[in-house]
This record gives sequence, structure tokens and C-alpha cells, in this order.
Amino acid sequence: MAFMLPLYNYPDFKQPPLLDAPCVRFEEVKQPGVAPEYYHATSIYPEYFQIRQGEWFLLRESRMDCVVVQKEDGDLVVTEFRHLKMGDLVALGRQENGEEGIFVHARPFDFNPDIPQKFAFRSRTTRETSFSIDYDELYDLLEFERQNGFIVWVLGPAVVFDRDARDAFVELVGNGYVHALLAGNALATHDVEAALFATALGQEIYSKRSVPLGHYNHLDAINRIRAAGSIQRAIHEGAISDGIMRAVIRKGLPYVLAGSIRDDGPLPEVIADAYRAQDRMRSLLRRATTVIALATQLHAIATGNMVPSYKVGKENQVRPVYFYSVDMSEFAVSKLADRGSLTARSVLTNVQDFAVTVERGLRKRYSDSFKKG
Amino acid sequence: MAFMLPLYNYPDFKQPPLLDAPCVRFEEVKQPGVAPEYYHATSIYPEYFQIRQGEWFLLRESRMDCVVVQKEDGDLVVTEFRHLKMGDLVALGRQENGEEGIFVHARPFDFNPDIPQKFAFRSRTTRETSFSIDYDELYDLLEFERQNGFIVWVLGPAVVFDRDARDAFVELVGNGYVHALLAGNALATHDVEAALFATALGQEIYSKRSVPLGHYNHLDAINRIRAAGSIQRAIHEGAISDGIMRAVIRKGLPYVLAGSIRDDGPLPEVIADAYRAQDRMRSLLRRATTVIALATQLHAIATGNMVPSYKVGKENQVRPVYFYSVDMSEFAVSKLADRGSLTARSVLTNVQDFAVTVERGLRKRYSDSFKKG
Amino acid sequence: MAFMLPLYNYPDFKQPPLLDAPCVRFEEVKQPGVAPEYYHATSIYPEYFQIRQGEWFLLRESRMDCVVVQKEDGDLVVTEFRHLKMGDLVALGRQENGEEGIFVHARPFDFNPDIPQKFAFRSRTTRETSFSIDYDELYDLLEFERQNGFIVWVLGPAVVFDRDARDAFVELVGNGYVHALLAGNALATHDVEAALFATALGQEIYSKRSVPLGHYNHLDAINRIRAAGSIQRAIHEGAISDGIMRAVIRKGLPYVLAGSIRDDGPLPEVIADAYRAQDRMRSLLRRATTVIALATQLHAIATGNMVPSYKVGKENQVRPVYFYSVDMSEFAVSKLADRGSLTARSVLTNVQDFAVTVERGLRKRYSDSFKKG
Amino acid sequence: MAFMLPLYNYPDFKQPPLLDAPCVRFEEVKQPGVAPEYYHATSIYPEYFQIRQGEWFLLRESRMDCVVVQKEDGDLVVTEFRHLKMGDLVALGRQENGEEGIFVHARPFDFNPDIPQKFAFRSRTTRETSFSIDYDELYDLLEFERQNGFIVWVLGPAVVFDRDARDAFVELVGNGYVHALLAGNALATHDVEAALFATALGQEIYSKRSVPLGHYNHLDAINRIRAAGSIQRAIHEGAISDGIMRAVIRKGLPYVLAGSIRDDGPLPEVIADAYRAQDRMRSLLRRATTVIALATQLHAIATGNMVPSYKVGKENQVRPVYFYSVDMSEFAVSKLADRGSLTARSVLTNVQDFAVTVERGLRKRYSDSFKKG
Repeated sequence: MAFMLPLYNYPDFKQPPLLDAPCVRFEEVKQPGVAPEYYHATSIYPEYFQIRQGEWFLLRESRMDCVVVQKEDGDLVVTEFRHLKMGDLVALGRQENGEEGIFVHARPFDFNPDIPQKFAFRSRTTRETSFSIDYDELYDLLEFERQNGFIVWVLGPAVVFDRDARDAFVELVGNGYVHALLAGNALATHDVEAALFATALGQEIYSKRSVPLGHYNHLDAINRIRAAGSIQRAIHEGAISDGIMRAVIRKGLPYVLAGSIRDDGPLPEVIADAYRAQDRMRSLLRRATTVIALATQLHAIATGNMVPSYKVGKENQVRPVYFYSVDMSEFAVSKLADRGSLTARSVLTNVQDFAVTVERGLRKRYSDSFKKG
Repeated sequence: MAFMLPLYNYPDFKQPPLLDAPCVRFEEVKQPGVAPEYYHATSIYPEYFQIRQGEWFLLRESRMDCVVVQKEDGDLVVTEFRHLKMGDLVALGRQENGEEGIFVHARPFDFNPDIPQKFAFRSRTTRETSFSIDYDELYDLLEFERQNGFIVWVLGPAVVFDRDARDAFVELVGNGYVHALLAGNALATHDVEAALFATALGQEIYSKRSVPLGHYNHLDAINRIRAAGSIQRAIHEGAISDGIMRAVIRKGLPYVLAGSIRDDGPLPEVIADAYRAQDRMRSLLRRATTVIALATQLHAIATGNMVPSYKVGKENQVRPVYFYSVDMSEFAVSKLADRGSLTARSVLTNVQDFAVTVERGLRKRYSDSFKKG
Repeated sequence: MAFMLPLYNYPDFKQPPLLDAPCVRFEEVKQPGVAPEYYHATSIYPEYFQIRQGEWFLLRESRMDCVVVQKEDGDLVVTEFRHLKMGDLVALGRQENGEEGIFVHARPFDFNPDIPQKFAFRSRTTRETSFSIDYDELYDLLEFERQNGFIVWVLGPAVVFDRDARDAFVELVGNGYVHALLAGNALATHDVEAALFATALGQEIYSKRSVPLGHYNHLDAINRIRAAGSIQRAIHEGAISDGIMRAVIRKGLPYVLAGSIRDDGPLPEVIADAYRAQDRMRSLLRRATTVIALATQLHAIATGNMVPSYKVGKENQVRPVYFYSVDMSEFAVSKLADRGSLTARSVLTNVQDFAVTVERGLRKRYSDSFKKG
Repeated sequence: MAFMLPLYNYPDFKQPPLLDAPCVRFEEVKQPGVAPEYYHATSIYPEYFQIRQGEWFLLRESRMDCVVVQKEDGDLVVTEFRHLKMGDLVALGRQENGEEGIFVHARPFDFNPDIPQKFAFRSRTTRETSFSIDYDELYDLLEFERQNGFIVWVLGPAVVFDRDARDAFVELVGNGYVHALLAGNALATHDVEAALFATALGQEIYSKRSVPLGHYNHLDAINRIRAAGSIQRAIHEGAISDGIMRAVIRKGLPYVLAGSIRDDGPLPEVIADAYRAQDRMRSLLRRATTVIALATQLHAIATGNMVPSYKVGKENQVRPVYFYSVDMSEFAVSKLADRGSLTARSVLTNVQDFAVTVERGLRKRYSDSFKKG
């Protein structure tokens, strides 16, 4: 069944209390990186700011826990505290119903009444929740997004610890279901290790054989890439003949490898500064229409912080941003489910099976897309 | 690749210390259900008892934590303490190296040196372990066992909470990969609920819709089966048109539904007495060559207690009994992994994905078996 | 701070729709153990049945997922399906608002407005939830219940795997904070094993040393108790000099050991029949005012099924029944939290720490109770 | 019982194969940050390098997965790959038994034979492992280290989500059981939030009440600290009147707050660059004799990577470095347990209980230390 975007429920500003709402107030930043008292902090929802009587401005490319800065041209920009500059005009107000000129639209979408469960079901999700429909909907969503959206995958290293999962993800890249990749040093390191030595942390990724001196493999992989100058150069030199990083790079897809204190190396492409990495991640996430996070609490939560529940497209259409988190632990996924959005979904399973199942499901359902590659 | 059984490593009783070992001693039971002091307790391994000088008797249909009773005809029978009768002769001895006439054979199989990892790999298994090879080996094993073995599945209710997993398991039954089923009241109840109402605990097993008054559904399901007299009769009357219990019963496969204190109802076929249920389970497990336990700690551990690591076949061939446990939690599967057997495997994943993946994998790899049904 | 019971919120039957409600209908059982169609199934809440116009009968000693049988004297008795006899009159109706003569009272208690969080807070509980207040409230509750209530503990075997936890629980028994014990064969077996050999499953419960041939210890423990005839007799004979079972038995507290298919032995006191065990558990739970379940999914869920959220005391006072579940896993405790009752609480932690902390906390806060013993 | 350090088992270089071993070879770095082929990578164990015939050099302040650089004065320094400079001399060799001039000493300590379990027990640790002895040993160890060692705590934010745990840790700081703190932005943020608003993520840390507009609290906390310039300044200005950061800072203890992509803010003291943070962490960990990591996979693993299993003290005494990881999940702690060191311990529990229990245990056992403060 073809995927259909839900309709956006446009707020009616002609009705009270919004009709009678004041304009939003702004105050100047007096200290770099510090917001004025009573700043407004953003949510994951569409938010409107009445900047002139009768004119409500919808935030674009929002994210939660930031402030709203008015530019000279009147534009409102969702800005991290650390990016505030002297003199920036920051929106004030903490009421969400319009009485301070701010309307937070917590129920933005009319989910199709004929298929009310589609992306509308919410309850406590556990390992015993049925996930058949989630897979089926995800196939349709990914096929739709392949052509109409921007699909960002967030990967923990577990995806490359297993041969079939790694191969499946490479297929997804090759067939157009991946538009950007967010990960850390470990994902890239063990993916390269698999390409060079067929191991992850010294264990073969299919046979599970522990190879002699295998604990050197990930260090050797890093050292060689550092010698080559970048993963990209190593690929061009032919040193890396398979894997996720190769598929992503050869296809010219954007990716961010964010550094962390756990890292060996790091690989040359890894961004050491956490906040510069955050900025780079957000620059990709501004385009995201669907995000799928696999087995990485750190990167999944970071991404969840930076991606709103909606996206404003061309011609001001508003559509949801879908967010999937896939993990083995109820504790992990509940951290993201608490975002409270109808567009967030959790699947409790091993990401190896998830990757393999999604690739097979798409191949079966949309074999034409696979033929076209 | 066709599955090959590993060779059995026959002990050499012509070498010391076994050559010089005494015969095993026996002592009479003086109180029903109570073993004499210094009884020998069985393990999961092949165990030999020297009953006459030079004659070593290999236990058949063993299980761990039981005693060994010598019958009048000289046969040695592995017996639960609770089944000991006055006058039974119980083997004595706690040394495992022959010095009390008992040899416990802890490394019974020569795993094929060309594929040493096959069923030979042991280490700490976690969600980050690679499982691709486990699936592939399992396909080959199941295809082999379909014709040459006896495959016992142990199911927790999660398998019927999801439409695709339930359907996949029905396919496995239909195509000959299931020879017996061990489960509890809940598995059968929610399977029947799904057949009657398309729900599990009141939630539709595909759409996840909560239906009105859905909390009555499992009670209504039980009540109707109780009215019919048995699941079997309800099936014959046409009341149950799909599901695992129907597939199992129509195929005439043996099954045990063991009662527990958690149960509603229970369904008529459920065995209330825990130890009678245990006896029935063991009577099936005596025949088991492969056991696969999905998402049920109680039944999986119970089964693990009752199934040895080997089976003596016709013409006294000795082969391994394979034991898979599939669960989301390292804690759960490590309880079984601690059995210490080379023939025990764990897969950390959601059993929904596991069932669907195994069915698809078998279908792809052994499509001929599927055609034949 | 002394514990205070919340006030019961008596329903007003003089107001519509209850004022205009019909009397509840009953129908005869026509097949033993089978309820008539459209039977009413009980919940964990107080339920009222209008048996004569203007006369609403409050169920006593209720439990969920049962039917309601009217006795000859007009009394309504909450009855398991399996106990239905020919001719029993079973209440009909599935609406909960009175329109079929049945009123399910889902908000029965006015929690004290000065301490509104007390037993009133509900949200998703995880390992990161703050539990300080839960401990403090539990101390006050247990001290109150020690004298005014009936505290039932439901124990998994983990409590006796650790010396300090086992000792702490023995102290709780000795000082009056335990009125009944529900457990399985394993709890009693390893408790006795600890008394006889200072081990659990062959590992010393303090030093963690694995003792030689330690895997015999639990079997020897069971065998000796079977030889003695009962735990009670073994205690009287002086064979068991410490532990939980000894403390419980010497104090004359009621207990139920329910059998399961996992059991070795079993110990003589263990009830083999799951439903007879359920009946025995329920007979104790009818008196329960607080239930605390530690690290046992099977017994905790079974108990949760059998205990309502309220108790009718002398002089028809209605009070809550508090239910605590303590476990390491969000998945496990959420199964009970889903009961939806304000009187259910979860603590995510290791039960070893829980037992030790509760004992210390009570000792510090209510040292007088400890002096009195 | 007073804690005693185990004796160091000095290797005997007068015996073959060490007697006949060659000197270790070195090779120049030809590209900054890239090691020469066949570099030797360090382990967590004591490692000796034969730099002149008969002269074996023991690495000091080692860490795993680094290379060994010979300085001009002959000193060997364990160096991260990223710190390699042109011309640095890097040790070569991957054999660990001396045959390349390198001896990795994998069994360095003679654990006291009278108390062989002390810090010597290793097996699979689960939530059902007994932990009483671990607590007792930890009390003795901490009291010893308080005066003779350097205790580094690694804290996840869960420690400040609960009032009692936060208070307990403040007591540990006040009484000398904390010598350095490693954490992230979240720990400090929610600790400051608790000081300013008595909440964590908007929920009161004792009552669990969700306060109005509470989701602003952590942002307000960060914003105020950023306005003040640093946590330290905010403390000196009196804005922060309790908590862990205040206790640590007022006592002048060193701490590292490492940034991550999940962070809001960040707080001024947070180090944005992951590898500069790593360097700062390591500079503290060089002094560590005991490390205790609570509920933080990221920081715990990062720390585990940087701390060896031994420390060379004054007068060249070699002693163990103890490493505790405390977490709710077997998966999390097994990542560290796999370090394979006898000096690594895991406790499976909620860190709230752990902190409270350790503080109480120390107070009871070493009340004199508490009096002295």
C-alpha cells in the first residue's frame, strides 16, 4: 500500500484565544552565549510566533531546548544557547497557548481516519509489542521517502559486528534508502576493520572465529586510515573493498562521525569537538524527514534532541518527521519515546535482525526499486 | 551446505584409569522418594557405569540432577528422586573419572575440524555477538532434523502476540520443522484468542488497535474452549480457523501444555500438576535431537533441566542434542548457556524477528521442502 | 512520619446514573467450570452489584478475571471459572457504569491532599526514577501494617543467594514485618542449602567460593528434607539452624510453596498442582493489605492476578491494598505496573540491596519495634 | 578487617625465555599520528621492555591500545597514536613472552592465599551473584585508599536524580573517599538543577512531583551558570548551596567534565574536544589506584580504556588498580568485565542503592573517619 502523508492541521488564528493574543516580546542578549531571563525554549512541535498583529510565523528547522532569535530581516531562527551573540533578539515567553504571542501546536497532524493506527498508535512499547505493522509501514514509508524525503540513519557499531546486517545496510545504501549517516568513530573503525581483516574487534564477523593477534586489527585499521589521510582516500586507493563507509562515500552521501571519549585513534574524518559535531549533525537533520536510529543510545538521544516532529517543505507544506529507534532495551527506547510525539516509534529487537528484515522486506515489496538500484 | 553430525568420541576403556576402575556400587532405597547417601547425580553429558568388569553401560535418555536406578534386567534408568521406590537400587559415587565405576564424558564429540566453529564456538554471547552463522547453521540443522531428528519447540506467549511471527511458526509446522511443542496455558490461550478475535490480550495482533472490551477476549477464549471440552474439539467443530495450536493438532503432533500459578482458566488440555507435566515433557524430550526455546524463561529452564547433550540412536550411535535459547536478555540466556555444553546456543533477539527470519531463511534455502510441505 | 490510610471515596448511589440503574442479572451455570455467555469479569477495583433496588453489594476479597456467583444467602462470591458448579448463579454484564447493575469504582481513594504524592504518583518508572521517597514511605507503611495489616512477601530465590539479603529478611520476619510468605521450591531449596552447606547452587553465599562437588548441595538439601518428611520436621530436629524458612516456620507464619516444572525434588511442602497452589495463595491474599514481590516474575504476576486494589475491613471500612514489585528489569515491573492502580509501586533495583536497605531503614526509624522484636 | 595490598609477583629475568630475549626494537614515526608497521600496542597489564641487555624497563602510567615511545633520556612513555610526532621512536613487536624484547605480565599479583577470594574471584557476574562480600571489601579498600591511594569516581547522571544518592555521595566527598571526579555535562547540569530548583529534568528529586514548567529547569540552570561564568564562580557567589559539584569544588578536588553530542548548553567547565577531554581524564587516571564507575556506559568504558591494572608507586612498588563498575545491566558491565583483569569488579544494582549503601557501610565500619571528616 502506498504511503500517504497525513494532513497538517492548520491552526485557526481567527479564533480566540489566538485571535486576541499579543505579539511576542524579544529581549537583547547582553552576554554571549547567555539567554535573557524568561527566554522561550523550543519544543519538538510546530511553534508559531505572532511577530506582527495577525502575522504568525512558523518556526522552520526547529529543534527542542533552544531559543528563538529574530534576525534583521524578521526571520526567526532556532538557535542553541552557545551560539547566542551580543545583541541577538531572543523571544520571551513560557506559555504555550498564545497568551504571550507563542503558540505551540501539540497536535499538528490529522492522521488518516481510515487508517487511524498508522503512526498514531501510542502506548507502552515492550519486547512483547507486535511489530509486524511497524515493519510494513516502514517499508512503505522508506519507499516514499526514497524519492520524496531525506532519510537519516544513526548507527551504533553493532550493525557492523555481523556480516548479514552489514551487507543488508550496504544494500539499503545502494538502493537509495539512505540519504545521510550519523555515527561515531567505532562504527567506521569496525566497518573498516571488517573490510581489511573480515573481523570486528578481532572476531570474524561471520564465523566468530577469534583470529590470532586479532586485538590489533582495529588499531591497525585506524592506523592505516590515518596513514592514508582519510577513509575516502583509502577507498579511492582501493584499500577498502566493501562495507558501509565505502557504500556511503562512493555514493557521495553526507555523513558525520562524531568523536567521543571512548575512541581509539580517531579516524581522520571524526570530528573531535562535540559541539561542532552537533552543529554538523543538525545541519543534516534540518533536511531529515525520517530518522532511524539503531543501537546507539548516545547518538540516538543526541539526534532526538536535534530533530523536530515536523518539517516545512516547499510551498510551506508541513509534514511529520518520523523517528524510529531500534534497541534491545526498553530503558533505551523509552528515553526517546518520552519525546511524546505521535511520529516516534520504537522497535525492540536486535538491530542485526532489523537491518536484515528491512532489507528483505523492501526487496520483496519494492523489487522494482531494487532493480533500478 | 548440508548438515553433518559430528563424530562421537568413544571413550577408551582399555586405558587407565578406566581400565583399572572398579564396578559401580548400588544401594537400596529405604524410603520412597529419598536417595541413599552418596547417590550419584547425573549431568547433561554421556555417562558410563561399569556394571560388570569390562562392561560399561552408557546411560540412555538421561537428564541432569537425577539418580540412576538399576532395573532387574540390569538396565540403568535415569530417574527423578520423586519416582524412587522402596528397594530401588541407586548408583553411588561422585567422582567422574572412573574411580568409582562412573565415567562422565565431558567432551563427547569430535566437531568437524574443517569447520571447527560449527557448534563449537563458546564464549560470552551478548546482543553484539554476530548471529549470521547461527541462522545459517540452524537452517541446515533444521532441514537435517526435519527428516532425521526430532525437533522440539518451547514457546513463550510472545510468539503469538505478533501476526507475522505466529504465521511464520504455523508455516514451520506445516513444512515439517516442528515435531513437538512445549508451552504453557498462555501460549495456547492467546493463540486461540487470536483465532477467535484477532487479538492478544485485547490488542489486535497486527494493527495493535485496542478493541472495545478487549480484556474479555482471552477469558472468552478460555471459556469457549472449556465449553467445547478441549482445543482439539473446538478445532474439529470449526471454531478455530487458524493458529499454532490448530496447526500442531491437525498435524497430530504431540504437545504438552504445563499449568502454572499465573494461569487463568485453564484450558482443558493444560496439565495442572507441575511434576506430571514435567514427566510428560520429559517423555517427549527423550526423543529430542534439537530443542529451540523462544522467550520463555520458565519453560526453557525446565526443558534445559530435562534434556541431555546427547542422544543414543539406533545401532547405538551417539549424536549431540542441540539446544537453542532465544531471548532479549543476556541474563535469561546465560542461565541456559551455563549448562556448559558445546551444543547449546543462544541468540539474543526478539523472538518475533527470529521466527520470521527462520521461516524465510528455510524457505529460501530449502524451497523444495516447502513445496513438498 | 506516621502512615495514614487514605479515605475511601464512597460512591453516591443516590445520583444518576447509579440511581436509575437496574438490578444486576444472573444466569445459571449449565456446564461445570464454564460461565454463561456475557458473564461479568472482575477487575482489581471495588465493584458494586445492585442486587435489590437500592441495595448495592460491594464485593469482598475480590480478584481480577473471575466471575461473581450469588450464593443462596444472597452473598456474592468472586469465583474462578474452574470452580463454577452446575447451577451456580453468575452475574452478567460488561458495562462498568451501572447500566447493567454493576458499578466498577476505578478511583476509590481520596489520597491525602497534604501529601498528594504519597501513593499517588504514577508515571513510567525506570531505573533512573528517584526511589528515596518510596523507601521512606515503605518504612512508614510497613510499621503501620506490622500492627494493623497483613504483609505478604513474594520471594524469588535471589533473596537467599546473598548472605546479607538473607539475613536482612530473617530480621524482617523476626521483627514482625512479615505475615505470610509466597514462594517456590527454589527459594526454600536454596535457603535450606544455605543453612546446611552455606552455599547456593554450590557457591558460598558470602565468599562466592565454589566448593568441591557443590553442585550436589541443593540435591543433598532436598534429599535430606525429603528424608525428614518436611522442612518443618527438619527444623524441629535441629538440622536447619538458620534462614528464612526457619524464621517463618518457627514464628508460625503461613506460607505457600508453589511447584513448577523447573523444580528438582520437590521439597515435601511444595504444592504440585498449580491451581491448588493458586487457591492456597489466594486464601492468604484475601487477608493481604500490603504485598511485596522481590525478583520473581512468575510468582509476582500470579500474585498480582489474585490480589485486588482494596480490602474491606471490619465495620466495612475500605482501604487500599499496596503492591510493590522490585526487580532489575523495566520489562518485568511494567507487567505489574500495567495493573493501572494507584496503589501499585515499582522499585528498579537488585533485591539484595532492597532487602538490606529496608531492614536498615526500619531499624533506624523504628528501633523500638526492633527492640520489642 | 584492614585491607592489605597483594604482593607483586616480580618476573624473573634470569630465567629463559626472558634470559635469552633480545632487546626491543624501535622505529621512527614518519608521519605524525601514524605508528610504524608492527608497532606494539599496550595492554592493561604490566609490560617490560628490554632496552639494554639485562635491563628491563617497566612501563609506568600505562593504558591499553597505545604505543610505546622512547624519549631521549631512554624513558618509555605510553602514548596515544594521535600524539605521535615525526621522529618519535616507537617500540615494535607483538609477541608477549619476551621473544621480541617485550614481556607482558598477565598474572602480576599474588593474591593473599589466606583470603584467596579477595579480589581474585572471577566468573560470570549477574544480578543473582552475591554481592555482600563486594561491599565489605569495598569498605576496607576505600578506607585504605582514603589515606594511601587515589580514588577516582566516574558518575552518570542517575546519581543526582535521587535525593538520597546525591546526599550520600556528598558525604563520601566530605569524608575523604573521593579524590577526583569524571563525568559529563549532564551530571553537573542536573546536580546544579537540583541545587537551584530541587528537581532533575523538572521532577523533584525526593517527592517526584513534576513542577510547573519544570522542563525549563535544566536550561535555566545551565543559562545561570553560563551567566556566572563557571560553576565555581556560581558557588562562590552563593548561588549553589548544595550538591556534588559544590562538594567537589569546595574541597578543591580535580574533576573533568567531558562534552558529548547529547549536551545542552554546555556548562562552561565542560571540555568540548573529546580527545582533549580524554587527555585530561588520563592525566587524573595516571594517579588512580581505585576507580568506581556508576551508571555511565560512555564514561565507564572511556575510563576503562585509560586505566591500567597496576600502578607503580614510590620506590617502584607495584600495586593493583581496582576497577568497579556498577550498573543495572549485565550487558553494560560485561563490557568492562571483559578487560580480563582480576582487579575488575562488577556490581549489578541501581546506583542509587549502591551510593546509599556504601556511605552507610563506611559510616558504620569507619565511624572515626567520618568524625574526623
